[in-house]
Amino acid sequence: MPDPLALAISTGEPAGIGPDITIGALLQLAGANNGVGGGQYRFHVLGDARLLADRAAALGVTHAWERRIADGDVVVEDIPLAVACEAGRLDARNGPYVLKLLDAAIDGCRGRRKAAPRYAAMVTAPVQKSTINDAGVPFTGHTEYLAERARVPRVVMMLAGPQPAHDGAMLRVALATTHLPLRAVPDALSVPLLVQTLTIIDADLRRYFGIARPCILVTGLNPHAGESGHMGREEIDIITPALAQAKDAGIDARGPFPADTLFQPRHLRDADCVLAMYHDQGLAPLKYGTFGHGVNITLGLPFIRTSVDHGTALDLAGTGQAEHGSMIEAIRSAVTMAGHANGRHSGSQGSQGATGHSGHTHSGTQPPG
Amino acid sequence: MPDPLALAISTGEPAGIGPDITIGALLQLAGANNGVGGGQYRFHVLGDARLLADRAAALGVTHAWERRIADGDVVVEDIPLAVACEAGRLDARNGPYVLKLLDAAIDGCRGRRKAAPRYAAMVTAPVQKSTINDAGVPFTGHTEYLAERARVPRVVMMLAGPQPAHDGAMLRVALATTHLPLRAVPDALSVPLLVQTLTIIDADLRRYFGIARPCILVTGLNPHAGESGHMGREEIDIITPALAQAKDAGIDARGPFPADTLFQPRHLRDADCVLAMYHDQGLAPLKYGTFGHGVNITLGLPFIRTSVDHGTALDLAGTGQAEHGSMIEAIRSAVTMAGHANGRHSGSQGSQGATGHSGHTHSGTQPPG
Repeated sequence: MPDPLALAISTGEPAGIGPDITIGALLQLAGANNGVGGGQYRFHVLGDARLLADRAAALGVTHAWERRIADGDVVVEDIPLAVACEAGRLDARNGPYVLKLLDAAIDGCRGRRKAAPRYAAMVTAPVQKSTINDAGVPFTGHTEYLAERARVPRVVMMLAGPQPAHDGAMLRVALATTHLPLRAVPDALSVPLLVQTLTIIDADLRRYFGIARPCILVTGLNPHAGESGHMGREEIDIITPALAQAKDAGIDARGPFPADTLFQPRHLRDADCVLAMYHDQGLAPLKYGTFGHGVNITLGLPFIRTSVDHGTALDLAGTGQAEHGSMIEAIRSAVTMAGHANGRHSGSQGSQGATGHSGHTHSGTQPPG
Repeated sequence: MPDPLALAISTGEPAGIGPDITIGALLQLAGANNGVGGGQYRFHVLGDARLLADRAAALGVTHAWERRIADGDVVVEDIPLAVACEAGRLDARNGPYVLKLLDAAIDGCRGRRKAAPRYAAMVTAPVQKSTINDAGVPFTGHTEYLAERARVPRVVMMLAGPQPAHDGAMLRVALATTHLPLRAVPDALSVPLLVQTLTIIDADLRRYFGIARPCILVTGLNPHAGESGHMGREEIDIITPALAQAKDAGIDARGPFPADTLFQPRHLRDADCVLAMYHDQGLAPLKYGTFGHGVNITLGLPFIRTSVDHGTALDLAGTGQAEHGSMIEAIRSAVTMAGHANGRHSGSQGSQGATGHSGHTHSGTQPPG
């Protein structure tokens, strides 16, 4: 058996639920038939060891947590807090600590000159932007920080999760634009942007999900996808030409489809990903459908990064009330992706449970235009 | 027992599936425990009697259809086609026919001077805009036509349906703007528009759904509801002041909430309606969640109007392949609304099945801001 693949988990804002959900998810995943065990993966938890021990005690799981560490499939990489942390109480003095966790994950995923990377993937718990900003460090978000550190001009935000109402079938939604005011969205779209976005999605679905020829369904920008130009021209002027270019490059991208009717099981059945034009258009149905089990995946980085799809929930830290469903999915997705990237997927029954229906073939069914 | 309440069903575009789904829905609703039987309601089907008979024959349900008519709970109001109609083939010469059906429904719902209205509600099957336009009549849509004929300056489009994944709980989503290019949406929003919209929703949920104090959750326009002005100012400049005015007027309107996280069962549980700022923001999750059983309800008219949430599906007309789930919900909703408006709801066990969880009390739970 090969060495276990090492995955880094950055525990994020110490006053938030990051430590709680990391502990909760790893303990739940230790159970039988969990899809990530069997000695094939080792989880490197990046954070203050004392903080993690305290939080495990607050959750009443000290014994189980210590046992995971003793077993060796959880390794705590102790990165000390600047000042002691009280659950729920932000302290800007710990802003640099949060970045240290991220930097350790990035450095470990990238590898030093000529040496192999230490980590096969990174999973991130939520950070509090204000803690970092109040520490005097400009920081607009996890994803932007990673892209800058990795020196890539563009990354793609994709959310994914199993749909409980549809036999757990995976729904994946990528965004052409992310955190922009709605009025800035139409002018932010361009043919090069969409082609680049489709190229990244196509490449990473092949590489990290083992999908031979990903089928990507693309929404329109306007209601009813513009209804042939009667309600906006971006479909005609931008989206359709971008789709033509992408098809010429061998990408199975289809659309533009009206967003309000695209999210139907009969249309999604044969799709590997939906590309939505903007934040709420894609994420409202995704979050409704995956119901607290969504995972945020950053495509286009030179390493694998998954994240929970929620915030720090300061009021729940240390209470045992935080739900770790999204962290479980984030870890499972990282395991699946790392397995594919490292050629372990086909032989790894352990990770099959994580991918849901991602490996299906296509029947070619298309939603109506 | 009082006289049955009469409901009009306008069968819409004759070449489309309107006649099919009307017949299919009324036959299915004839079954036991259907929620609309028991002699309390009579359905007036507006359309060409020959067309309806032919379509029933094509669907292989002639006997059952004739029996419904003989029983008297279905009345065909024969309004003749201009020219014979072949399923799937549009003919502009029948454009005026489609408008005649609508006018008959409107006139019947409004009543003549001093006489009571003939119909307690109208249900509309889909029309094909081009048939009417090609006949030389300007027509931008059902809803606009009804508003103009009823001489009301503003109506509100609300879609509603049971959510199969959540015990059939009703989800209702109203829209502040409807068929506009996305780039026109931000400037279309205003405080008076939102206050007027909330006032109409509040009034009609009380009157037609028997909800004593409707709880309306309002989305933001921008991602994360603008994040305190960091991603757009419409929440601060328009939505929040409108909510304050509405609350002063006694309306339980709350928000603005981020649209991507609002559509979660724990937030929706205590809400009677979501007000979304634009088409895809509200309808993508609504249609995903109600899964082919959505109904389009026009609020703010001086009568009750419900409609299916899909188009004419010309290729399915006469084939038996058309699904009538949305028409069933449209009829059920009209029955529920007419029952409330006519004081028959509380004693009418028959219509309870149509309302789902609409009559619950509120625990006051709010989604996070």
